[in-house]
Amino acid sequence: MVALNTVSDPLVLALREFAPLAPHMETHLDAAITQAVSEPGKLVRARLALEAGLANGLDDGEAMQLACAIEYFHTASLLLDDMPCMDDAATRRGLPCVHRRHGDATAILAALALINRAYTLAGFAFAAQSPGVRVQAIACLDACLGPSGLVGGQAADLRYGETRGGARAVAKIAAAKTGALFWSAVFLPALASQPTEAERRELKRLCVYWGLAFQALDDLADVLKSHAEAGKSTGRDSALSRPNLALVLGVHGARAGVDRLAALAGAAADRLATHGARWSYLRRFHVEYFAPMHRRTLAATEMLVAA
Amino acid sequence: MVALNTVSDPLVLALREFAPLAPHMETHLDAAITQAVSEPGKLVRARLALEAGLANGLDDGEAMQLACAIEYFHTASLLLDDMPCMDDAATRRGLPCVHRRHGDATAILAALALINRAYTLAGFAFAAQSPGVRVQAIACLDACLGPSGLVGGQAADLRYGETRGGARAVAKIAAAKTGALFWSAVFLPALASQPTEAERRELKRLCVYWGLAFQALDDLADVLKSHAEAGKSTGRDSALSRPNLALVLGVHGARAGVDRLAALAGAAADRLATHGARWSYLRRFHVEYFAPMHRRTLAATEMLVAA
Repeated sequence: MVALNTVSDPLVLALREFAPLAPHMETHLDAAITQAVSEPGKLVRARLALEAGLANGLDDGEAMQLACAIEYFHTASLLLDDMPCMDDAATRRGLPCVHRRHGDATAILAALALINRAYTLAGFAFAAQSPGVRVQAIACLDACLGPSGLVGGQAADLRYGETRGGARAVAKIAAAKTGALFWSAVFLPALASQPTEAERRELKRLCVYWGLAFQALDDLADVLKSHAEAGKSTGRDSALSRPNLALVLGVHGARAGVDRLAALAGAAADRLATHGARWSYLRRFHVEYFAPMHRRTLAATEMLVAA
Repeated sequence: MVALNTVSDPLVLALREFAPLAPHMETHLDAAITQAVSEPGKLVRARLALEAGLANGLDDGEAMQLACAIEYFHTASLLLDDMPCMDDAATRRGLPCVHRRHGDATAILAALALINRAYTLAGFAFAAQSPGVRVQAIACLDACLGPSGLVGGQAADLRYGETRGGARAVAKIAAAKTGALFWSAVFLPALASQPTEAERRELKRLCVYWGLAFQALDDLADVLKSHAEAGKSTGRDSALSRPNLALVLGVHGARAGVDRLAALAGAAADRLATHGARWSYLRRFHVEYFAPMHRRTLAATEMLVAA
């Protein structure tokens, strides 16, 4: 796989090229969207969607459109999550948050512009598919982003302090909030090759494991990393009564949980590889992206636990 | 045409039926979405989209899905417009605004859920169309809702106080902010019958006239009506330095402007009717919906001017 986040990375270039900018648009909105698409994070979901699209028969352009759609949905969710009425974050990816620079209204409108463009790109990516595939793709996005997915998970996340709950409740929120975008990154492109029921079940398992593991790593980072190291406002989950696996399980428990989830995800990816070559990218992704991230975060938390 | 806003109105029922609700969803989000879809306004855009869909060959179900999609986009824009960082309204449709009842974060998430469901419904409504029509429909929604349409218009609206500008600048914002949803209500369904270039130009003119006229009527209401009479927070455009045609042209100028726009819209609808029977619904809509609303608002403002 090619290196990420370099100026020549086709995905990074495409994220700028497809950005919802227009001539003579209001300058704060322009600046907000430009910042949001020019400072990409790890692009995990987008890279996954790109690989998935190519593996499942989309052409290069369609796979790239779909990857950018998934990344725009993710970026929009971050713009909104950072707002004062949600996580009230000050920085993101080493820069002041969009709402701190351009105001809350501009952050909302930038998120809406990204979401609108994301639906457009997803629609274009599937334009050549059969009616049956397209209807499934529309239903998949509806489920991933709606009240049973990202939006519902975020709503439960924000009200967690009113109900509390143990690891099970926290995991359920993480599955909706973080798992849903992994699910859309993997399952939406997979629809183009019409997976069997058994394959769909394995894909779902894998995405749930990855989603929970990513959220647990993020939760560990929130608890343990300092503001400067994380590049975004941290230590906030406790202050804001947000669900956090490292808070409900303890740091050692959360670390053990991530190890277990990583093993389960690896096993699911292995099983999928036996179903056909088009699923081998999942195993590769797990080894080349997930495992190093897992190791890095655990190492970082280990140092901090020891300190 | 059937009466609006009654319990037996199929459109009112469909707006509830298609609402983005899910079992066990977070209760504030559930209540916010339920309020937003249960207290419909005049449903002008949705009714227009419904008529347009049927006139252009969509079946009953598809036309209804499209009508609800347009109404959900509109409703989401109202939920967000009312927020403290935008117009900071207290009431809407005679009830406390969603963000006042359930908080800003819930209002944002409710808007996102409605927008997600709106794209789903629009996708389903066009699922049976040819690839060419579908790609045009996707591009139409992208343009109507993005930085050149609704989102861009709202951004310019909020920053109007920084630049000011005369009637021309205000009209440009109104065309993007209000005209775009009329354009999507009329043009999106029209794509199903592939209008000629000449017909597209006339449709565009008509939607610009309607959009500007509706915005001017709304601006007059803002300036003249009391809080109680309008059922929403009014008199705010001046306080918030928002673009308002009745403020830049004066009440008499704005009233004359609405008369002129209504005449232009009527003439455009008449011309379209000569192009074919499928456009006759536009003339009917103008006479049965637009003209009475125009008369009522002007009469209301007249009484208040005289008072």
